[in-house]
Amino acid sequence: MLLTNARIATMSEPAGYGLIDDGAIVIRGDRIVWVGAQADLPAEHAGEEVTDLGGRLVTPALIDCHTHLVFGGNRAGEFEQRLEGVSYEQIARSGGGIVSTVRATRDATPQALLQSALTRVDAMIAEGVSTIEVKSGYGLDREAELKMLRVARQIADVRPVTVRTTYLGAHAVPPEFAGDADGYIDQVCIPTLHAAHAEGLVDAVDGFCEGIAFDTGQIARVFDAARALGLPVKLHAEQLSNIGGTQLAARYGALSADHVEYANAADADAMGQAGSVAVLLPGAFYTLHETQMPPVAAFRAAGVPMAIATDCNPGSSPLASPLLTLNMACTLFRLTPAEALAGLTRNAARALGLTDQGRIAPEMRADLAVWDVTEPAELAYRIGFNPLQSRIFGGTL
Amino acid sequence: MLLTNARIATMSEPAGYGLIDDGAIVIRGDRIVWVGAQADLPAEHAGEEVTDLGGRLVTPALIDCHTHLVFGGNRAGEFEQRLEGVSYEQIARSGGGIVSTVRATRDATPQALLQSALTRVDAMIAEGVSTIEVKSGYGLDREAELKMLRVARQIADVRPVTVRTTYLGAHAVPPEFAGDADGYIDQVCIPTLHAAHAEGLVDAVDGFCEGIAFDTGQIARVFDAARALGLPVKLHAEQLSNIGGTQLAARYGALSADHVEYANAADADAMGQAGSVAVLLPGAFYTLHETQMPPVAAFRAAGVPMAIATDCNPGSSPLASPLLTLNMACTLFRLTPAEALAGLTRNAARALGLTDQGRIAPEMRADLAVWDVTEPAELAYRIGFNPLQSRIFGGTL
Ligand SMILES: [Zn+2]
Ligand SMILES: [Zn+2]
Repeated sequence: MLLTNARIATMSEPAGYGLIDDGAIVIRGDRIVWVGAQADLPAEHAGEEVTDLGGRLVTPALIDCHTHLVFGGNRAGEFEQRLEGVSYEQIARSGGGIVSTVRATRDATPQALLQSALTRVDAMIAEGVSTIEVKSGYGLDREAELKMLRVARQIADVRPVTVRTTYLGAHAVPPEFAGDADGYIDQVCIPTLHAAHAEGLVDAVDGFCEGIAFDTGQIARVFDAARALGLPVKLHAEQLSNIGGTQLAARYGALSADHVEYANAADADAMGQAGSVAVLLPGAFYTLHETQMPPVAAFRAAGVPMAIATDCNPGSSPLASPLLTLNMACTLFRLTPAEALAGLTRNAARALGLTDQGRIAPEMRADLAVWDVTEPAELAYRIGFNPLQSRIFGGTL
Repeated sequence: MLLTNARIATMSEPAGYGLIDDGAIVIRGDRIVWVGAQADLPAEHAGEEVTDLGGRLVTPALIDCHTHLVFGGNRAGEFEQRLEGVSYEQIARSGGGIVSTVRATRDATPQALLQSALTRVDAMIAEGVSTIEVKSGYGLDREAELKMLRVARQIADVRPVTVRTTYLGAHAVPPEFAGDADGYIDQVCIPTLHAAHAEGLVDAVDGFCEGIAFDTGQIARVFDAARALGLPVKLHAEQLSNIGGTQLAARYGALSADHVEYANAADADAMGQAGSVAVLLPGAFYTLHETQMPPVAAFRAAGVPMAIATDCNPGSSPLASPLLTLNMACTLFRLTPAEALAGLTRNAARALGLTDQGRIAPEMRADLAVWDVTEPAELAYRIGFNPLQSRIFGGTL
């Protein structure tokens, strides 16, 4: 396949869009074999079947590198109660909060979990997404965690999308282990990791390192188990306070540290040296009315690649729109549009350990998005507007 | 037409959703003739052609009561420059800001203005919108203001949507009248209002009352001209400071005062007594990083109906999503989901002076939205997700 008459944001330079005007892309099978100015097209490719893109903008397909989009239940009622003045305590006492999602996820059939997840996956595909990371962490017991990960894998069987699974057993302490986080980690979380890995369900291992969840010592035990299995790690760190999660993640060479609003310059330096990506999640910042901005200047100074993601989840970020995430990253965190787009392409791939996605270059997967705009900044500038014209997934339009 | 098996948020009570479970709606021509519990359906309607809505939620179609969606040019580049560190002053010196939109709007053909507006209109229709208000105000000379209003009227000829036009000649002082706001009001703004009215292009008259635009004395002259023509008024008031615009609007019995972040309790009382609607615009608040919240508690206490709108415009709110506006009204302004939905239905109709829209009740227009959700709060809870299943406009599916 030969795509012609395209404005191409290759995202393959260290910074900026890597723009090619009047560009062409040659695709063979599921791979890009050539990209450049149309005038420079080698003769050997001139005979390919041509698709004229009418001058439209082409970017790598988008990658959502941090989601919790498999879950049971619905927290809209709780959202409404809070706005009607019911306190968090009252909601928790009546079984609301994350506990309600855990209960509903445990009770749900795999079929029901898949159907509900697909509504969110379809919304993302409609915005040009090719790859979605999906975390477990609402099961919090062996069977329900395995069920979530199997459903996550199934998504890729029924939709043209790549799924990367992340085991997040260390998301919260379930009610049956209240007051015994250590017991939960040792008796449930780590054994379940082994079981999930044995079933081939785990691409990476994550945790929630926070006062209301697990401390660095508990997370370190989970990371040691991951290391022993040869699995990469990542961490929800420094979202609400700084308790050392980012430094811990860097010591383990984590793919990414996520949220990181409360990370400081030393944390940024440690990430830069470890090569960890900072995954910024403006949807949660927005929903929770946070005011502490992530240290974007420190990340820039330390050469930390920044990714952005929806954090799609039923509590703190019921956001299914990567395009809105682009706008929020610019508006709320003051990323430039080029940084934000790198955060949904090149750097998102890196946060997932994927070396053949997120850029338009030879040997990369042919996952592309074609947009009815001419300037890449328009993707971030518009709010609640989807200019996707078509999506190419693994070389197929 | 008989719609059955519906959960109906009639929005026809003074507060709340006015929910009817297991409901039915009878439509004849473009009007609703009956709504209620299906079990109570009068025998005379039993023979109508049935559409089973499968238990889905039905609301009045949405009404966006404050937009500037007809404009020329594109301000994405300016958005990007600002995030890359270029100052407002530098952007203004190089011809950016509202002046660039005025120039591009003056230069655009009516066809080009219409085509670009339709991309935004189509995004709104896809979210269940039936009625859109469109303001002039980027022409700022006679021909360009008339051109904008003619294009706004044309939208309703080519799309199944009701358009209400608002003359906003008093939006900004154009470059050729720099330093002479009074001259602009008297020599251009008011004469152009007469011309537009003579052509049947004006449903209401608006102004921007702010330190950077027009003072209350200048707005009062425009309002006097509107009153003499029998046209209702509304006002951009108290967005960035309090200079008395809301009180002025109330004295003229305005349909609405819009933005109103800096309005106080006395302003709210004046609006309550005048019957003016407070139109809240969270998209501009979000984009401009405002921190002053509108006095929602004072509006509630004074019985001021609250509407919400996208404020769709190229500078301070490039937002084309009424559903995202619902979420922002709840998240940023702490409206309840029921208040926010009333703000896009019942109270939005009132802000436009429309008495037969925005509620599901006999004699209302049959403008309805059918959603793939069961709880109305879900429409506000989700971010960047469109569950519209179908739209009925004037009785036509
Ligand atoms: Zn998360
Ligand atoms: Zn406005």
